[in-house]
Amino acid sequence: MTKPIQPKPVVVTAGEPAGIGPELCLSLANTAFFDRLLVVADPVTLRARAKLTGSAVRIREYSDSRAFPNDFREGELLVIAQALPKPRVCGRPDTANASALLNGLKLGVAGCLAGEYAALVTAPLQKSVINDAGIAFSGHTEFLAELTGSETPVMLLVGKSMRVALASTHMPLREVPDYLTRERLTRVIEVLLGDLTRVFGIARPSVIVCGLNPHAGEGGHLGSEDASVIAPVVMQFRKRGFDIRGPVPADTAFTPAAGPCDAIVAMYHDQGLPVLKYASFGTAVNVTLGLPIIRTSVDHGTALDIAGRGTADSGSIIAAVALALQLAGQ
Amino acid sequence: MTKPIQPKPVVVTAGEPAGIGPELCLSLANTAFFDRLLVVADPVTLRARAKLTGSAVRIREYSDSRAFPNDFREGELLVIAQALPKPRVCGRPDTANASALLNGLKLGVAGCLAGEYAALVTAPLQKSVINDAGIAFSGHTEFLAELTGSETPVMLLVGKSMRVALASTHMPLREVPDYLTRERLTRVIEVLLGDLTRVFGIARPSVIVCGLNPHAGEGGHLGSEDASVIAPVVMQFRKRGFDIRGPVPADTAFTPAAGPCDAIVAMYHDQGLPVLKYASFGTAVNVTLGLPIIRTSVDHGTALDIAGRGTADSGSIIAAVALALQLAGQ
Repeated sequence: MTKPIQPKPVVVTAGEPAGIGPELCLSLANTAFFDRLLVVADPVTLRARAKLTGSAVRIREYSDSRAFPNDFREGELLVIAQALPKPRVCGRPDTANASALLNGLKLGVAGCLAGEYAALVTAPLQKSVINDAGIAFSGHTEFLAELTGSETPVMLLVGKSMRVALASTHMPLREVPDYLTRERLTRVIEVLLGDLTRVFGIARPSVIVCGLNPHAGEGGHLGSEDASVIAPVVMQFRKRGFDIRGPVPADTAFTPAAGPCDAIVAMYHDQGLPVLKYASFGTAVNVTLGLPIIRTSVDHGTALDIAGRGTADSGSIIAAVALALQLAGQ
Repeated sequence: MTKPIQPKPVVVTAGEPAGIGPELCLSLANTAFFDRLLVVADPVTLRARAKLTGSAVRIREYSDSRAFPNDFREGELLVIAQALPKPRVCGRPDTANASALLNGLKLGVAGCLAGEYAALVTAPLQKSVINDAGIAFSGHTEFLAELTGSETPVMLLVGKSMRVALASTHMPLREVPDYLTRERLTRVIEVLLGDLTRVFGIARPSVIVCGLNPHAGEGGHLGSEDASVIAPVVMQFRKRGFDIRGPVPADTAFTPAAGPCDAIVAMYHDQGLPVLKYASFGTAVNVTLGLPIIRTSVDHGTALDIAGRGTADSGSIIAAVALALQLAGQ
């Protein structure tokens, strides 16, 4: 096993090698926390990308046979080598890499669970390519939950001025209404309230829960789930003394009219993320709650179309590492 | 009939008398366009509300038996009297008023169709109360379409920095996927493109169309409608030479990454309005496209809880009247 490092480093997975992940990782070598990172990546891919984008970052391979370096300099990146069958090619993902990429994730998770790393930060994968490789994969969040035996992972997006949790994540829109049972919604809110305190250190979190239907169902005229599913769940939490309100119409929840709160629960992906990403473009961080490890990630995709140009905005991955360090108390 | 006024006035309906509509109308008497308005309202309600909120606005009743006044002063409101069976009570809507309120709307529409008024501006109604009165009513937009024999009314929200059109409006979320056929989506986009030119004066409008599912279906892994319904419709418009792109994931469409555009088409209410209202809180205007008349409205509800306090924000109704005058070329 790797030798213990104090303070513990954050482990970063470089994500899809044909996307912008490798160059985002390179950019971390020139941040304030360059010496508190380990990147899981294919060194061939990283060196090729450095050359392609004119990056002067020096790759230092790390393995358990060598002591953790204590002579870090800015511009150096410590890499746990995870060789890929098809490295190098920008813009064209290859299904041949899918299995190795998931192994890299597993390695990061195992290190976090073993207490060697403070937190896991993930660069984006191309979900469709992993699926095309014959591996069922609906997203990092779900994969990490399975890997850590977590029943209810909760996707929380942290932006400049708001936190948005999703009651459902990556599924066709038509499946959302039946998916959102009282039991599922209760578990999501339970995890959110718990982790806002445990991970974010908010003693008494204030939470707004969106309605499912337009106008939160408009008194039953625009759908029944707001009254039959969401309202009773919110009421249960209120009875237990939590500071929670809803269902609030989604087009009110994000405005000053709804009042301040520590987090908003959106019922589905496109109810919550368009406003979050509009409000915090390029700097939002995705945090997975309900896991036994701290995990953050970028809020964007692989951006295959601009990979290798060196123009990718590293704002989100820098924010993701900074938040991971903060939540880990480092 | 009313005597012709030059330039033509905008007609404003005061909406639910138990809500903030009446006091919003009173506030219009102290704006730059106080002498270019006719308000359809119950004078008893208006006078009671003026007294309650400490407003010094003077109500002048207008009817066809008298000439249009040419001695307007700021602080005066010209009102077409539409008596209500149950005026005055704040916060508690009465189903007894439903029919008269809809008659007020009809009066405004008839005046616009007859060329007497430049445009119609509507304060909010309480949909549930009208439904409870036994009258099927799913919103102003749909009611005005029926009244004017318009096949495809399109709800467009105009904010400070964006315009958002809705491909579906007030319906339960679970009905959205089947509602959005190629034919319906085509008609909505047709109306939008046409009215961006005809009403807004944009010679060659640029339009972004959102996907229905998260990540616009992620290559079919998160739903099929993006590929089977939205993509072919967008392609047809591109073939006809329009500047239109999509399906774009909704959490990208509103960010700088999607590039500039004149309007974004959201597939449903809570995909588009949360971000619009967050971005333009208190100043967004709802415009109904696809009608033979110009119609704008506030972007908020009746706010029964604060009616009568005189604290309601008149930003949206002022913006709605200003935009109506602008679109009417006044």
